[in-house]
Amino acid sequence: MTVDIKSRLADTAAEVEETLAALLPSITSDGDRLAEARVIEAMRYACQGGKRLRAFLTLETATAFGVSRGSAMRVACALECIHAYSLVHDDLPCMDDDDLRRGRPTTHRTFGEATAVLAGDALQTHAFTLLADDRTHENAFIRIQLVTAIAKASGAMGMVGGQMIDIEAESAPTPLTLPEITRLQRMKTGALIEVACQAGGILGKANAAHMRMLEGYGRDFGLVFQIVDDLLDIEGDVAAVGKAVGKDADAGKATFVSILGVEEAKDRAKRLTAQAIAHINPLGDRSAVLAALANYALERKN
Amino acid sequence: MTVDIKSRLADTAAEVEETLAALLPSITSDGDRLAEARVIEAMRYACQGGKRLRAFLTLETATAFGVSRGSAMRVACALECIHAYSLVHDDLPCMDDDDLRRGRPTTHRTFGEATAVLAGDALQTHAFTLLADDRTHENAFIRIQLVTAIAKASGAMGMVGGQMIDIEAESAPTPLTLPEITRLQRMKTGALIEVACQAGGILGKANAAHMRMLEGYGRDFGLVFQIVDDLLDIEGDVAAVGKAVGKDADAGKATFVSILGVEEAKDRAKRLTAQAIAHINPLGDRSAVLAALANYALERKN
Repeated sequence: MTVDIKSRLADTAAEVEETLAALLPSITSDGDRLAEARVIEAMRYACQGGKRLRAFLTLETATAFGVSRGSAMRVACALECIHAYSLVHDDLPCMDDDDLRRGRPTTHRTFGEATAVLAGDALQTHAFTLLADDRTHENAFIRIQLVTAIAKASGAMGMVGGQMIDIEAESAPTPLTLPEITRLQRMKTGALIEVACQAGGILGKANAAHMRMLEGYGRDFGLVFQIVDDLLDIEGDVAAVGKAVGKDADAGKATFVSILGVEEAKDRAKRLTAQAIAHINPLGDRSAVLAALANYALERKN
Repeated sequence: MTVDIKSRLADTAAEVEETLAALLPSITSDGDRLAEARVIEAMRYACQGGKRLRAFLTLETATAFGVSRGSAMRVACALECIHAYSLVHDDLPCMDDDDLRRGRPTTHRTFGEATAVLAGDALQTHAFTLLADDRTHENAFIRIQLVTAIAKASGAMGMVGGQMIDIEAESAPTPLTLPEITRLQRMKTGALIEVACQAGGILGKANAAHMRMLEGYGRDFGLVFQIVDDLLDIEGDVAAVGKAVGKDADAGKATFVSILGVEEAKDRAKRLTAQAIAHINPLGDRSAVLAALANYALERKN
C-alpha cells in the first residue's frame, strides 16, 4: 500500500482548520459592547494554521480502529486546542518571548499579553468542553478516559512540567545531559503526541496489546519529531520553518543536536523511526499511513 | 435550626486545606535535578489559604442531597484548583499586577512570572484530572456532567470571559453601566460560585426543580458576594481583607458601589440575600446552612 502522505496531511489540515473554526466559540454579538469578544477572537487566531500533526495522529489511529471520523475529529480538535494554548503561553514575553509563530505574529503580539494569557486559559478549558460533550462519543466512560489521558499528558507531569524543565535549564549551572533532555522532550512535546496516538485507540476500544503498540509508536515518533526540530533549528531557514531559527544554539541551550552532533542526531532519528514503525507493524495494512507519517517526519523540512 | 456558620466555615477550610494538599501533585524526587518540581511547588503555594467559599458551597449543597463527603470533597478541591489558577493568572503583571494575595506575596512574586503562568495552567488541568477520576464518583456520566458544567463556567463564556471584560473596561471610553457590570460579575466570579452550588446537585442527582433552586441561590449569592467585595474595597482595611484595598476606586473603575453608591449597594445586597435564601427555602431544614452562609456573606468583613 503506497500512501501519498503529503497530500493526506494537507487534506487533513484543511479539514481540521474548518472543523476547529466551527467548534470554537464565535462572536454572535449584534455589535453591542461585548468585550469578551476579544478573547474569543484571540482564541480563534491562536488556533489557525499549523501542521495539525496531533490531529492527524488521532484521526489516523482512530481510522486504524474503525472509529467514525466525526468522533475522532472532535478529539483531534480538542488536542489542537491544548497544543495552541501551550504555544500561546510558551511564546509570552515571560517565557520564550517569541514574535513569530506559524508564520504570523504571536498571539500576544497581536492581542496583547493579558488577552493572550486569557485566550490560552480558555483554549485549555475549551478542549475539555469538547471532550466531555456527548457528540464526541456516546459512551460517557470513553469520554472520561479521554479527559483523563489528555489531562495527564498536558499537566505538571507532562507538557507543562516539560516546559518548566526547559525554562529551568536556561539558568542551570551545567547543560542538560542526554537522559535529562530526553525526559524533558518526552514531557514537553512527547506526552501530547503520545496521547494523540492513544486517543484513537481509546475511541476504538483497542485492547491492551494494541494500546501498547500505539503508545510505543507515539513515544518514538515524538522523539523523532523533536530531534528533527532541533536539526531544523540548526539547518532550516526561517521562511520554511515559520518561526525563528538558530535560537537554541544562540542561547547556548542543550538540544539533541548540541549533545549528539548533527550526524549522530540524524542517525538516532533514523533508528527511532524504524522502531516506531516496528511497534505498529502487527497492525498490518492498518499501519501504512502511520508508517508513512513516521518516514515523512524524519525527512520534513518544516 | 441554628448554625454556627463561622466555625463551620473555619472547620471546612481546614479540612479543604488538608485534602487539597493531599490531592495536588507532590515532589517525590530523591534530590536529583527534577526541575518540574518548581511548578509543583508553585501550584501548592497558590492553593494555600483562602476562604474556601466555593468548596464550602459544593460541600453544603452536596450534603443537602445526601452525597458522601469524600466524593463532594474531591469536587470541592477541583473547584479550588480552578479558583486558585484564576487568581494566579489575574495577579500577573500583564493583568492586575498584584503583589499581595491571601495575605502573602502573589505566586509570580514568589516564583517568577513564567512559573506562575505554568502553575496556573497546570492547576486548571489538575482540576479536570480530579473530576474525571473514578474516586470522585463511580458513575462516569456524573463525572462528565461535572467536567462539562465546570468547564462551561470557567471558560470564555464564564470566568475567563468576565476577566476579559474587566480588562477591556479599563480602556473603554465610558464606564460600564449597571447591566454591564452585573453581566461582568456574573461571568467573572458568579459563574464559578454558581457551578459550585450546582455541583452538589449533580453529585446528588437532584431533579430539575432542585437544580433550579441551587442555581438561583448560587446566582444571587454570587452577586451579593461581589457587591460586598466592592464595599470592602472602599471600607475594608488591608490587614483584614488580605489583599490591596482602594484599588478599584483609585483606578476609576466602575463597581457596584461606584454606580449605586454605598447605601444603595448595601440595600441591594440585602435584597439579593433574601432572594437567595428564598430560592432554597423549599428544601426546608436542608437549606439552613446555605441560608446562614448567605447572611454571613452579607455581613463579612474580609
